[in-house]
Amino acid sequence: MTREQLIQTIHQRKSFLCVGLDTDIEKIPAHLHLFDDPVFEFNRRIIDATKEYCVAYKLNTAFFESLGAKGWLAMEKTFAYIGKSHFTIADAKRGDIGNTCDMYAKAFFKEMDVDSITLAPYMGKDSVEPFLKYENKWSIILGLTSNPSAADFQFTKNESGKELYKSVISTASTWGNSSNTMFVVGATKAEMLGEIRQIVPDHFLLVPGVGAQGGSLKYVVEFGKNKDVGLLINSSRGIIYASSGEDFEERASEEAKKIAISMAMLLE
Amino acid sequence: MTREQLIQTIHQRKSFLCVGLDTDIEKIPAHLHLFDDPVFEFNRRIIDATKEYCVAYKLNTAFFESLGAKGWLAMEKTFAYIGKSHFTIADAKRGDIGNTCDMYAKAFFKEMDVDSITLAPYMGKDSVEPFLKYENKWSIILGLTSNPSAADFQFTKNESGKELYKSVISTASTWGNSSNTMFVVGATKAEMLGEIRQIVPDHFLLVPGVGAQGGSLKYVVEFGKNKDVGLLINSSRGIIYASSGEDFEERASEEAKKIAISMAMLLE
Repeated sequence: MTREQLIQTIHQRKSFLCVGLDTDIEKIPAHLHLFDDPVFEFNRRIIDATKEYCVAYKLNTAFFESLGAKGWLAMEKTFAYIGKSHFTIADAKRGDIGNTCDMYAKAFFKEMDVDSITLAPYMGKDSVEPFLKYENKWSIILGLTSNPSAADFQFTKNESGKELYKSVISTASTWGNSSNTMFVVGATKAEMLGEIRQIVPDHFLLVPGVGAQGGSLKYVVEFGKNKDVGLLINSSRGIIYASSGEDFEERASEEAKKIAISMAMLLE
Repeated sequence: MTREQLIQTIHQRKSFLCVGLDTDIEKIPAHLHLFDDPVFEFNRRIIDATKEYCVAYKLNTAFFESLGAKGWLAMEKTFAYIGKSHFTIADAKRGDIGNTCDMYAKAFFKEMDVDSITLAPYMGKDSVEPFLKYENKWSIILGLTSNPSAADFQFTKNESGKELYKSVISTASTWGNSSNTMFVVGATKAEMLGEIRQIVPDHFLLVPGVGAQGGSLKYVVEFGKNKDVGLLINSSRGIIYASSGEDFEERASEEAKKIAISMAMLLE
């Protein structure tokens, strides 16, 4: 999906919600275990229940890998089921030397035709470039994460007093451009979004942590929105596990709708 | 595998060689394509050809993922085939928040029973702790990598003039201990190994890049060896692609043997 298509989709649906499919086989409703592939069945129903309220789906690769080859297959089927109506994200946080990243790019961009992949920046430019070679595909690089121990290294100041996460965002923004690169920015510190916006005024930001991780939608929009909206805000558990019963689709739909309504108001 | 077992294996085999199975389906000998699972068939034969000369096998997950669910299955079968005679490494460079890392730990430590996994440090302690909870399993954390763009962030000096990779190694060494944590240290800068040894005198170091990436065995041992050897030195392409013909097993065996002989001499 191109930047223009993504922006258009956001305006059409009046939503910049990303639904996170962190599908844990131990948390899905009992009646789905009668299906051959309960994880895919769950994802398929969540997608049907939420697709009019969101613009993106993020699949957390770890949850699929924990089920082995069968899980990988469920991931492939889920991406295929989503198709081209939504922006797709493989939340894989990969990062390695060039010839290895060629293989990851092949896995996600070529074999599964996913729009984007999340990447860890520790190994630098080499570890992102192989992904940037694919047309209309996106690298979503970790900038500031929302977990407590993000502080261990991301807040380390360099000799000029600049925090590592700011150096990462400013350096990595020069590797590609705002049509093939986004940044992951945790929402637990909304005011930091303002500072990040000064570094990358045009880039899209993928913001996890609204909902279960405590971020507030209003502040994220206030500090993070740019002229093209420029935000994808993820919610996983708050939507997909809104109910653990047979009404899980209805409840997921309601939760996604609630967020989409708030987003539509904030876009006005 | 415990630290004691690993040290014992190194002394028994007089080798600290790790063979890297970066198995690229486009590079394996043509005659193997007649098999149902050419990647597993290649790995199985490489393992048989090299097992007496090495103490560890490292599977680069990207190469398996690039083949989808079938590739994941080949990875599972390869780890199972290696069994318990060698230390096994999933070179996956994962790193995410706690509940996601629980899933990666389940995938690699529980489902596949691999001894260790490589991890990226950017998200801090949270992203390593879930792996440390498993008994007799290892976290191998990226310290200093050998790719050219390692310099982008790993050499950034903090306000006290300390490079990021040194902060990562010293901080991360406190999360676990030398019986469940190792560090990846690129071999292109052997003299830096000496400085790293001062930070972590007891930890094992996984050193990629001897061979194709230009590191020299002699210098790595000179600067990196500790009282328990404390090194696993990886070679991938130089061994597994020593020949692309029907003699690939013989040639791989010869290359592994050559390195093992050099190692035995350096251990005396």
